[in-house]
Amino acid sequence: MAKKIITISREFGSGGRSIGKKLADRLGVPYYDKELINKVADETGFDEKFIEEEGEYAPNKSFLAYAFAYAGPQRGIMDGLSTADYLWLAQRKVILNLAKEGPCVIVGRCADFILKDEPDAFHVFICADEDYKEERIVRLYGETQMPAKERLKDKDDRRRVNYKHFTGREWGRCQNYDISLNSSAIGEDACVDILEQIIKNS
Amino acid sequence: MAKKIITISREFGSGGRSIGKKLADRLGVPYYDKELINKVADETGFDEKFIEEEGEYAPNKSFLAYAFAYAGPQRGIMDGLSTADYLWLAQRKVILNLAKEGPCVIVGRCADFILKDEPDAFHVFICADEDYKEERIVRLYGETQMPAKERLKDKDDRRRVNYKHFTGREWGRCQNYDISLNSSAIGEDACVDILEQIIKNS
Repeated sequence: MAKKIITISREFGSGGRSIGKKLADRLGVPYYDKELINKVADETGFDEKFIEEEGEYAPNKSFLAYAFAYAGPQRGIMDGLSTADYLWLAQRKVILNLAKEGPCVIVGRCADFILKDEPDAFHVFICADEDYKEERIVRLYGETQMPAKERLKDKDDRRRVNYKHFTGREWGRCQNYDISLNSSAIGEDACVDILEQIIKNS
Repeated sequence: MAKKIITISREFGSGGRSIGKKLADRLGVPYYDKELINKVADETGFDEKFIEEEGEYAPNKSFLAYAFAYAGPQRGIMDGLSTADYLWLAQRKVILNLAKEGPCVIVGRCADFILKDEPDAFHVFICADEDYKEERIVRLYGETQMPAKERLKDKDDRRRVNYKHFTGREWGRCQNYDISLNSSAIGEDACVDILEQIIKNS
């Protein structure tokens, strides 16, 4: 198991988080998603809800309200950085430290880019067909005023813009990842099997 | 084996053709690469060298010379189409017919797009790290006046432009394929194992 640090990037609704969690369980290694957010909260003092929303997505319309409500108290220690840049640096530091601590699965937050020169890292992208993602987000997160198709587009568009801004790369380009899997074509459990096999044989 | 038609798109030098050939052998199905070119030659009367070069790549500087030397005799039957459009339609027809004939592996030539609505098709992209591809093309195809790094860039840039022109999509975007594999990170034989397993379990 030479590949010890697995990063999982994913389209909204593709099941990437679920695949990452199952993979971490099979490999017996820690899984960082919400847990990573807690660490960034400790590092920055930012509210976890603010980090969850703004640490991975380009600002939406309510960004300013968030920024003042949640990030306001920290502005004095940000050395003139924007809230987004300050949060990026904090997330980057937490991810680099996690990779030093030992084997793990890290979901989202541009970890593929942050750990691109880490020889022990293996980078995964999970995508899925539109119908599959639409059905899945409504089943898991319920209906909202915004139709499922628009929710998918809004979230992934904001991930794409955030990724491009901080990494200079195109989000979802095959060459950024060691493997990309369409979970609706292959099946969620089969994706976990394939990843487990690759990591164990590495 | 519900997924019977496997299309393989690949970066130049990534070993995608070799992976496709081995996969076809393991599955006991026909492999279409040069063989597809022969069929397009039968269909169009174009020279095979011309089809090989211009059927998958945006025109390079010598395109006009090629076009007159090799495609010239056919211009009268092209119904006012450009040589490139005529070749695209002929390739498309050959690929759709191959998919109707039965299980097979088809390499390159935008087959992933042409067969995107075919439920029995499974679409693969193979990429690899730069150093791996450079070493591989020099070992397999020898040195040329153009440095290996430039040869890789030239060929893939022309594939990208050709793909964008005829499909409207971005070449090498994860969402176009059911799986994308980095052959230098995973290993050529391991890529074949993973694909064989997915297809046999489908």
